[in-house]
Amino acid sequence: MSAGRLIGVGVGPGDPELLTIKAVRILREAPVVAYFAKAGRRGNARKIVDPWLTPANEELPLAYPVTTEIPVSDPKYRDALAAFYERSAERIAAHLREGRDVALLSEGDPLFYGSFMHLFMRLKPRFATAIVPGVAGMCGAWGAAGIPMAWGDDVLVVAPGTLPLSDLVARLRHADGAAIMKIGRHLAKVREALRACEMLARAIYVERATMENEIILPFAEKCDDSAPYFSMVLVPGAGRRP
Amino acid sequence: MSAGRLIGVGVGPGDPELLTIKAVRILREAPVVAYFAKAGRRGNARKIVDPWLTPANEELPLAYPVTTEIPVSDPKYRDALAAFYERSAERIAAHLREGRDVALLSEGDPLFYGSFMHLFMRLKPRFATAIVPGVAGMCGAWGAAGIPMAWGDDVLVVAPGTLPLSDLVARLRHADGAAIMKIGRHLAKVREALRACEMLARAIYVERATMENEIILPFAEKCDDSAPYFSMVLVPGAGRRP
Repeated sequence: MSAGRLIGVGVGPGDPELLTIKAVRILREAPVVAYFAKAGRRGNARKIVDPWLTPANEELPLAYPVTTEIPVSDPKYRDALAAFYERSAERIAAHLREGRDVALLSEGDPLFYGSFMHLFMRLKPRFATAIVPGVAGMCGAWGAAGIPMAWGDDVLVVAPGTLPLSDLVARLRHADGAAIMKIGRHLAKVREALRACEMLARAIYVERATMENEIILPFAEKCDDSAPYFSMVLVPGAGRRP
Repeated sequence: MSAGRLIGVGVGPGDPELLTIKAVRILREAPVVAYFAKAGRRGNARKIVDPWLTPANEELPLAYPVTTEIPVSDPKYRDALAAFYERSAERIAAHLREGRDVALLSEGDPLFYGSFMHLFMRLKPRFATAIVPGVAGMCGAWGAAGIPMAWGDDVLVVAPGTLPLSDLVARLRHADGAAIMKIGRHLAKVREALRACEMLARAIYVERATMENEIILPFAEKCDDSAPYFSMVLVPGAGRRP
């Protein structure tokens, strides 16, 4: 019996119709479909593929440990996550050893800030792997907003809002366009960074792109500092346009 | 009679299975499917959707003018392209006025370096528009290479290889990971920029990702300076990994 394959499946930004033809085929063929979720919740990735799974798929939810009381900078946070990824990799390995392919869901694209990568790196030395690329969250966001993002020789900088202010400013100064991800409680800092780089006036705030309750507005018109983790700020480039 | 809609459809990096479910549905419903191509050629975008079109789709090829003898910096180059985009927009507008939706194909994602944007900006003030985001070429490339690109707080810089060397170096110095597009005859310069930024050792060269004759190799092992326009160089980020 040959071992199964770990397949990273990008499920796109949120709209179930934004899975690729290949992703849907792979999901329908996969004996096991695994996905990350917060403890006690179904998880966004699982919700996105709801129309595409069948009763033949065995589901393997991987519930994140509760780490809300540990600061991200605390080594204990890192240890708790590392132990969780180890455990999850072994749960998947058990299926792979029995010859069952495991499709592991990833919001957006699997190799672009996805938790999938932590299991991929752990399992790749031992098992065959494959990647089904997906529509990245940022592409879903600028598509929903109808904003051309990069023209001609534009340089696009993708930066997490979690960076310190000075670092964010230094990176954005070398950008023509920018996509700032992982906004959450960093919104006020991101606004300050954009103001410092004279990008605020053309920045767009996007929340829950391509999903129900999508919110898109000029960042300058967003009056509060509250934003979910999966919100984004987009600064369109303005390069060569014949 | 109401006017038709212009729909920008991302067709992904090359593999026809990497169109989204939505893109295929929109193409099957669209009375007119338009696409850019070099004069006398069918064009890559049109080739990618071959399995998905039906005889019911009216095809509208938009053939680029021959500009190979005009330097890109010459205002005549810009004028020739602008005139072409104007003409193409009017050909599409003629269908829209008659109430027919027009799906305009775009390799990768429509709002990310796509020629689609030039017609979108011209037609948006007059007609309803919609965007179907696609799997970006770079996501297809790093997926095919199996390379995690951005971890934790990594900043990803997307830069065209067409930039001058000093500019390329300045931008890459502020990158954790990078995707350098539009390589073509700029390969030697890109190599020099990556060497200056100490990124050469971990850079990967990718050509025709997800298509037949795909080539993926460590950039350091690429011994010649010849590359097609749609090749790419990827520098993976190395951020936080619990």
